[in-house]
Amino acid sequence: MHNSRFPVIEMFGPTIQGEGMVIGQKTMFVRTAGCDYQCSWCDSAFTWNGLGKKEVRMLTAADIAAELKRLAAHTCSHVTISGGNPALLPHLEELINLLHESGIQVALETQGSLWKDWFLLIDDLTLSPKPPSSGMKTDWDKLDVIIANLKAQRRNFSLKVVVFDQSDLAYAASVHKRYDGIPFYVQSGNEDVLEEDTGIVLGRLMDKYKWLVDTVIASTELNNVRVLPQLHAWLWGNKRGY
Amino acid sequence: MHNSRFPVIEMFGPTIQGEGMVIGQKTMFVRTAGCDYQCSWCDSAFTWNGLGKKEVRMLTAADIAAELKRLAAHTCSHVTISGGNPALLPHLEELINLLHESGIQVALETQGSLWKDWFLLIDDLTLSPKPPSSGMKTDWDKLDVIIANLKAQRRNFSLKVVVFDQSDLAYAASVHKRYDGIPFYVQSGNEDVLEEDTGIVLGRLMDKYKWLVDTVIASTELNNVRVLPQLHAWLWGNKRGY
Repeated sequence: MHNSRFPVIEMFGPTIQGEGMVIGQKTMFVRTAGCDYQCSWCDSAFTWNGLGKKEVRMLTAADIAAELKRLAAHTCSHVTISGGNPALLPHLEELINLLHESGIQVALETQGSLWKDWFLLIDDLTLSPKPPSSGMKTDWDKLDVIIANLKAQRRNFSLKVVVFDQSDLAYAASVHKRYDGIPFYVQSGNEDVLEEDTGIVLGRLMDKYKWLVDTVIASTELNNVRVLPQLHAWLWGNKRGY
Repeated sequence: MHNSRFPVIEMFGPTIQGEGMVIGQKTMFVRTAGCDYQCSWCDSAFTWNGLGKKEVRMLTAADIAAELKRLAAHTCSHVTISGGNPALLPHLEELINLLHESGIQVALETQGSLWKDWFLLIDDLTLSPKPPSSGMKTDWDKLDVIIANLKAQRRNFSLKVVVFDQSDLAYAASVHKRYDGIPFYVQSGNEDVLEEDTGIVLGRLMDKYKWLVDTVIASTELNNVRVLPQLHAWLWGNKRGY
């Protein structure tokens, strides 16, 4: 039964998770190829725009677990699965269960456009519906079902909305209101995903984060929320592999 | 019954929590005066070294709640109590209960040198035992009891150790090992708590954080941990009131 193959475009770590509900967590990353979205500001567009096509390997759960073990035999017991949208993949439970059997916790990031039963196995699940600046449209019926399922099973999950501008902020407020009581993260966006100068990136990211902090502080709609930057981009700019 | 008075040295916010288990949380701060420790690098030494003496006000829970309401009537429903060491205060349950009745969640920071029954009421409790560079000595028997009590009641709490150097790192590893399974945060220290130039502070803090990240990534002892900076110091340097 354990022979599904998953399209993996990169694996790296240990490093730290730079954003969201487990910010700072020592983790490794498994990035899967393919996405049902094409966000205008995607920082991992190589996972879906064809530019990373040659990097994709079709790997079994055992292949992935073995490679993670080579990356960190004794230094790390946490893996973050990201994409692209890993929720496109059937039978990812094969990988999640194998990692759990090896004593490894599993976080996963997805936009909340698709449900998979294996969501219920994830230790730290981030749903990040995309705001207007992405150019994408949220399927609220789908997201309603996903959140209802996770709530019913009392899973550890959160909502995260990336914010670039005022209309994104209004979108974030509407998500926070619609899913009242779910841990809610707003994250300042990165407008320069192609900039190679780490110092320039840092300055712009800090300015954007300060703007978001000031705006959220004054907001009556974004009340019980967490406001975070992407720490990895502050440290390492737009370099891949961190 | 509700007439205890608490030594409050400052109240401010809303702002964001810059560190630890609820990093990024929109919150207000209540800082109490007095400490059983005198850490060499304390960033709030005015709470215990006499310099803030004139700022101390003896306030009831109702006084504090009213002032917080003035700071944020409709924008914030989270308060962080810090010090000094607020665990010195008897009957802080008067304040915690009143805040809860107003729909406000309560986080608290303490070094874990003293137990109080009202710890069991705190929503997000951070225990931050102090490493060798502080000049303080940990009372392990006390900390053992505190952690056993919190575990027995399944409270939401974490351990946080500030790290300046290799011997602090060894201390952090020993705390993590002793209290296996408790969410564990390592935080890079601020060596320039008196520096007024925010740009200088930022550069040094980022270097220190990068060092800590690199060191923890390579460590076999600090395996399932979270590594975080003090975001507020990156944004606002050593200014008070943020």
